[in-house]
Amino acid sequence: MLSEINNVFARRESNVRSYCRSFPVVFDKAEGSHIWDESGQQYIDFFAGAGALNYGHNNPEMRDKLIEYLTLSSISHSLDLHTAAKQSFLELFESSVLRPRQLPHKVMFSGPTGTNAVESALKIARVATGRQRIAAFTNGFHGMTLGALAATGNSYNRAGAGCNLPDVDRYPFDGYLGKDVNTVDLIARLIDDPSSGYDAPAAFLLETIQAEGGVNAASSEWLQSLAKLAKRVGALIIVDDIQVGCGRTGDFFSFEMADIQPDLVCLSKSISGYGLPMALVLINPEIDALQPGQHNGTFRGNNLAFVTASHALSYWQDNAFSTAIKQRTEQTTTALDGIVAMSGGEFKRRGRGMIQGLVCPSADIANAISETAFRHGLIIETCGAYGEVVKLLPALNIPSDVLAQGLSILKDCSLANTTIGQAITG
Amino acid sequence: MLSEINNVFARRESNVRSYCRSFPVVFDKAEGSHIWDESGQQYIDFFAGAGALNYGHNNPEMRDKLIEYLTLSSISHSLDLHTAAKQSFLELFESSVLRPRQLPHKVMFSGPTGTNAVESALKIARVATGRQRIAAFTNGFHGMTLGALAATGNSYNRAGAGCNLPDVDRYPFDGYLGKDVNTVDLIARLIDDPSSGYDAPAAFLLETIQAEGGVNAASSEWLQSLAKLAKRVGALIIVDDIQVGCGRTGDFFSFEMADIQPDLVCLSKSISGYGLPMALVLINPEIDALQPGQHNGTFRGNNLAFVTASHALSYWQDNAFSTAIKQRTEQTTTALDGIVAMSGGEFKRRGRGMIQGLVCPSADIANAISETAFRHGLIIETCGAYGEVVKLLPALNIPSDVLAQGLSILKDCSLANTTIGQAITG
Amino acid sequence: MLSEINNVFARRESNVRSYCRSFPVVFDKAEGSHIWDESGQQYIDFFAGAGALNYGHNNPEMRDKLIEYLTLSSISHSLDLHTAAKQSFLELFESSVLRPRQLPHKVMFSGPTGTNAVESALKIARVATGRQRIAAFTNGFHGMTLGALAATGNSYNRAGAGCNLPDVDRYPFDGYLGKDVNTVDLIARLIDDPSSGYDAPAAFLLETIQAEGGVNAASSEWLQSLAKLAKRVGALIIVDDIQVGCGRTGDFFSFEMADIQPDLVCLSKSISGYGLPMALVLINPEIDALQPGQHNGTFRGNNLAFVTASHALSYWQDNAFSTAIKQRTEQTTTALDGIVAMSGGEFKRRGRGMIQGLVCPSADIANAISETAFRHGLIIETCGAYGEVVKLLPALNIPSDVLAQGLSILKDCSLANTTIGQAITG
Amino acid sequence: MLSEINNVFARRESNVRSYCRSFPVVFDKAEGSHIWDESGQQYIDFFAGAGALNYGHNNPEMRDKLIEYLTLSSISHSLDLHTAAKQSFLELFESSVLRPRQLPHKVMFSGPTGTNAVESALKIARVATGRQRIAAFTNGFHGMTLGALAATGNSYNRAGAGCNLPDVDRYPFDGYLGKDVNTVDLIARLIDDPSSGYDAPAAFLLETIQAEGGVNAASSEWLQSLAKLAKRVGALIIVDDIQVGCGRTGDFFSFEMADIQPDLVCLSKSISGYGLPMALVLINPEIDALQPGQHNGTFRGNNLAFVTASHALSYWQDNAFSTAIKQRTEQTTTALDGIVAMSGGEFKRRGRGMIQGLVCPSADIANAISETAFRHGLIIETCGAYGEVVKLLPALNIPSDVLAQGLSILKDCSLANTTIGQAITG
Repeated sequence: MLSEINNVFARRESNVRSYCRSFPVVFDKAEGSHIWDESGQQYIDFFAGAGALNYGHNNPEMRDKLIEYLTLSSISHSLDLHTAAKQSFLELFESSVLRPRQLPHKVMFSGPTGTNAVESALKIARVATGRQRIAAFTNGFHGMTLGALAATGNSYNRAGAGCNLPDVDRYPFDGYLGKDVNTVDLIARLIDDPSSGYDAPAAFLLETIQAEGGVNAASSEWLQSLAKLAKRVGALIIVDDIQVGCGRTGDFFSFEMADIQPDLVCLSKSISGYGLPMALVLINPEIDALQPGQHNGTFRGNNLAFVTASHALSYWQDNAFSTAIKQRTEQTTTALDGIVAMSGGEFKRRGRGMIQGLVCPSADIANAISETAFRHGLIIETCGAYGEVVKLLPALNIPSDVLAQGLSILKDCSLANTTIGQAITG
Repeated sequence: MLSEINNVFARRESNVRSYCRSFPVVFDKAEGSHIWDESGQQYIDFFAGAGALNYGHNNPEMRDKLIEYLTLSSISHSLDLHTAAKQSFLELFESSVLRPRQLPHKVMFSGPTGTNAVESALKIARVATGRQRIAAFTNGFHGMTLGALAATGNSYNRAGAGCNLPDVDRYPFDGYLGKDVNTVDLIARLIDDPSSGYDAPAAFLLETIQAEGGVNAASSEWLQSLAKLAKRVGALIIVDDIQVGCGRTGDFFSFEMADIQPDLVCLSKSISGYGLPMALVLINPEIDALQPGQHNGTFRGNNLAFVTASHALSYWQDNAFSTAIKQRTEQTTTALDGIVAMSGGEFKRRGRGMIQGLVCPSADIANAISETAFRHGLIIETCGAYGEVVKLLPALNIPSDVLAQGLSILKDCSLANTTIGQAITG
Repeated sequence: MLSEINNVFARRESNVRSYCRSFPVVFDKAEGSHIWDESGQQYIDFFAGAGALNYGHNNPEMRDKLIEYLTLSSISHSLDLHTAAKQSFLELFESSVLRPRQLPHKVMFSGPTGTNAVESALKIARVATGRQRIAAFTNGFHGMTLGALAATGNSYNRAGAGCNLPDVDRYPFDGYLGKDVNTVDLIARLIDDPSSGYDAPAAFLLETIQAEGGVNAASSEWLQSLAKLAKRVGALIIVDDIQVGCGRTGDFFSFEMADIQPDLVCLSKSISGYGLPMALVLINPEIDALQPGQHNGTFRGNNLAFVTASHALSYWQDNAFSTAIKQRTEQTTTALDGIVAMSGGEFKRRGRGMIQGLVCPSADIANAISETAFRHGLIIETCGAYGEVVKLLPALNIPSDVLAQGLSILKDCSLANTTIGQAITG
Repeated sequence: MLSEINNVFARRESNVRSYCRSFPVVFDKAEGSHIWDESGQQYIDFFAGAGALNYGHNNPEMRDKLIEYLTLSSISHSLDLHTAAKQSFLELFESSVLRPRQLPHKVMFSGPTGTNAVESALKIARVATGRQRIAAFTNGFHGMTLGALAATGNSYNRAGAGCNLPDVDRYPFDGYLGKDVNTVDLIARLIDDPSSGYDAPAAFLLETIQAEGGVNAASSEWLQSLAKLAKRVGALIIVDDIQVGCGRTGDFFSFEMADIQPDLVCLSKSISGYGLPMALVLINPEIDALQPGQHNGTFRGNNLAFVTASHALSYWQDNAFSTAIKQRTEQTTTALDGIVAMSGGEFKRRGRGMIQGLVCPSADIANAISETAFRHGLIIETCGAYGEVVKLLPALNIPSDVLAQGLSILKDCSLANTTIGQAITG
């Protein structure tokens, strides 16, 4: 625990700091799916940098590449200049990701945060279509800068803008009106109705699985019908694959199972593989509309990230990694279904691939589970409109036994927070 | 030069890429103020990562710290959790920067790009004051995400938004109405006049030296009168010290010479010391208005950057570095004044500290100088409303002889582009 | 028909003129529910100034009052000064309308067009609540100035703004999601969900019967549930009763049947009784938030309108007029149901009171009916998202035989445009 | 004075009412430049309906035409249908106003308030140019609906919006930076500078004499240089001639003396001649960009106003009226210059034609003059950013002796409020 004396965080860090309040220790070391605090206490990490550590902490092969790169005085910072490290990354990204999926897309290095990638995609969509409004979805989460924030559902975050957040239409996500309703029908009706007040947007911006919004997974059918509608009304599809891309669902992109081809894809978080700041936008060349230098930024050439990102792509040269992710997914699903069953239906399970949510009866219970888990050596966060969902986001290469260990802690902490569990321990 | 065959940049990188078009080689290695391309060609770097490399490329002491940190499996990615590396940085920043300058400010890690820092500062200013409009200045440059872009003067960049950029009032910067006019008088009149259409803003957002805008340096008097006006009308002062902070002017902050205390300060670029993505906002604790988690982001805990940033702060523990910067400044100024004199007044000099501009009669001439310089082994960029200013932005620790060498190349390339120079060579 | 030679309308009137294109004659005289063109051709008027002539054209008693007022040199134009004519109107409005309905509301003369009244109501709602966003409904129609236009559904009209139309959320009106769905449930869910992207608005702005939007009548239950929701979330209710107030539904206000008390009510069109420009906003005194002079306008004191408006209020001193309207409504409904039946279900009937719509299979058919009717001496317009609804809007005091005559023409023109009718005449 | 008992205005009129607070009596009759309250007290009217009564109250010839029109059951309300009365007006407007000035403009009946006309002009300018931003001026006043309000300088009025007022750039009006500065030079510089943050607007919206803003008259040179700039940068000129058109300056349009041809002209107030609600926009046919029905409104066909407006045009068939106005102007100017001289320079005179301002040392003094004048039988209002200007706006056909009488009252009341006057009476 943090000593009250000489606590520079309390003294000098802004009030806006957040996760560190839930996990009030000072972390020091990390390897794979483990993390240690200053006192040597070990934790299993089911949070994984909010999805930025799909390949675990301090992946040893990436670390070796990094150290080698640094040692050779290879260029570290390069704006958007050509560098050998960037060239390697682009070539590998082309051969491992784009070509096998027949994606003609160009790559834009947008500035190394997810919100920069979303902002870039919005700009391209608006300039390319000449339309101003963006269609976003209930419970969507896209970032904290003004353009991305306007498309974010969370009212607490939006209130942080302190100003008008313009030019966004908000539609119900898949499942929002009940599982029997395809909300795309309503969206289509609103857009087709010339008197509804809704016009065809520049683009639909969506996560295929809403992570912060509560682990809401869209179905393939919904994604396909949305893509079809977009095409019909001249709107683009922007998939914000920042949290659920880079293998989180078992495929490299989260939308592969739906067999759609988005016009724009935002990647960040795990794209560098090592948790280093990096983000990019994939752009269908037909709408590569920004002029040279029209969007810029200092850290678009983070070569250390290119080095680790290039190594991360080696995971995608065959199906082995995908297969392993699917095994972990099965293990996770089985465990969660067990918890749900043992809870007598008080909990529910949600999600797809290695992003799953345990939906609790209340935010209080979800928080209690997260807090108890932390005391028992498991780092796990909550999400959802009310914070009522415990979100499982382990590294994709978490060893099966560590995963089992974490799931076991989660089971104990969850069941202790059921009505029966409370009655016993209360 | 880049081979046309198998050029992955042309094939797969977005049209928006820019600097790489001016310097069309593949860079590979870098040390201090030198950089090498794939073919082994060496260049002197007067661009320094657009101000992100104030301590030079691959600073060897920082590199050693980085390698040590990596080797020990210290935590690399940590969201906004407490880490030992972040704690070190905060403690050193407090003792080396904040305390000696009696700044009570809190530190917000805003997301590791300059535009994230600006967006954060704007949010805080709006929430803290309850006002929506931000006052920005002619020729100001603040970033490419929607909120920061709205405050950016450049029309080419703003056109990239493809939508409305709201809630900004634009005022003339120091000198815009001629050197005898203190534009703060006009600003005060507009704000005081209840029928002018201008209301008191949430904040004035400014660079003390407009870098992209053409190396326009505000005077101490102007900054002081603006600070006074802001205080009187209940507006905050946000100094965007992203490009000209971190020692660029000889002091750590660019506003120290004016003896003002901004409510909010944005730092990025050279704050990590090594060109790694990092940004922060300094916040007067009285207006630390965002609630926990109201602004967030994945890469706010870039521990590799904290490690190098901590080392960079060692430069500020006594006056030696400041003194050295002032010597380099004198060397630069003398050289530029020489060029101006030899040009028969066709060029002019502008700037302060180690950001100086050679103002050319036209953008064509500025571009010609930059291009010729590159062919002669000097990387130097242009800026200004029309791109008419050659901007000198070398590393602050550039050895005197390398600086001399670069200035000599610049002199030759510049004079070759005067009327007389053209007459001789033309 | 208009002579091509010397047609000053074509030569000098703006392209935006519209109704005159559907009824291309020059009108000259009018009495009650009849109107004559220059050639002496008589028409029955089922359009009634788009609802501005509920008491018929040139109501003789009002005309006499007007002539008397003019003859006496009573004041005609008075800005917002006190005048005897305004005093009379206010006293009568209080005694005939407000007191009997226990409405504590204040009266604001907003400027004499409906859109001015809507703009005023929006301003009051925003200032009173401190919230910026207004909730408007699919197919709503509220006016052509920027604030009102932002709340208007029609995309053709909104495109006329040529700019961003901000600060409106759009919800589905009663019946939009099918007759079994109470859309207020969805609205409540979106507002209650802190992550939906929808926040509680300053006000809900609605017509109880959407006139331009296609004669869509909200049910009492829907209005009540909306009023309840508004109260719960701190939002105001603004009823735009411009087209369907002033007796159109049988009661003075259209919302009386639902027994709700809106915070703000907009009246215009028939409030003057004689088709003279006049508009007002009723304001619950608790939210009478605009300061003296904060909203102004030159023609708020149209005393000629006060004179005729005062006389119009005499219709509301007992129930006789209401009863008569209900009889006309029955006559209209019966006739329309007959048309629907005879059409074999190709047409449908919609509406309430003396605003009814004959829903046609297409806009082409609706237009054909309107055109044919005009040739047969009946003026009747179309409305709806696609212009697919023939809208009946006769004067409320139309003599029963004239109503019958008009309905008979409508029947003939409608049936001629059914499939069978077309087959016969085709 | 208004009895406290049974004061329906206090009881039922909204708090926003304003002029009636300055002149707290109930007015009853009016003829020419005189007005009487209920008690029979007579006042000379130097306010003239804020410029809506250029031809005086209840002009007897217009009244006769009105009564005749009403008696004949001619059509009163006609939406935008063709009527004989509208045809007459258009033909006379063409022959008396447009043709003699070689104006090719089309006429749009925008809805019968000035703000409707301004909103229409803004829409046309935006749609015709494809640009969103409007350039407005310090101290400009254009109306109270959202689009027009955004262009209005007055902060008290703008605060009444309760929301964001977007898409307006604000420039200094003629004289704002001192009489030696042509502010068009600054405007040109800002627009030409691609990095100033100011882009070429859709249109410049201006009053040639800012009435509410304090009787600030632009010079011909300024207007010409602005028109030239507008043409160069592809922006339109919109002259809001609502208060100072229709003869106020001696010519029909206020801009005639500058020999410029605006693309759009807004007229209202005195266009009907009798104070009846009417407004129109003149549109250069090359930019007549709104589609049929894209802007609409119920009261665009106020035929009573067409009747009196047609008669008003008879004043403009030769130069007699212009000449008479110039005589009255001279009489007024001489009297005001006398007051200024006698005040020892405490007052100043401003204005052009029959809109003149007596600039007082403070708003308190201006208010005191207006209040005292009212007690002495003269109605006169204040204007300006602080309300510091007493504004003379008599009817244009005010008899010379009545004008003299009013000016004499004004002289006495003004001088009583000079330092010396106060010393004597104080």
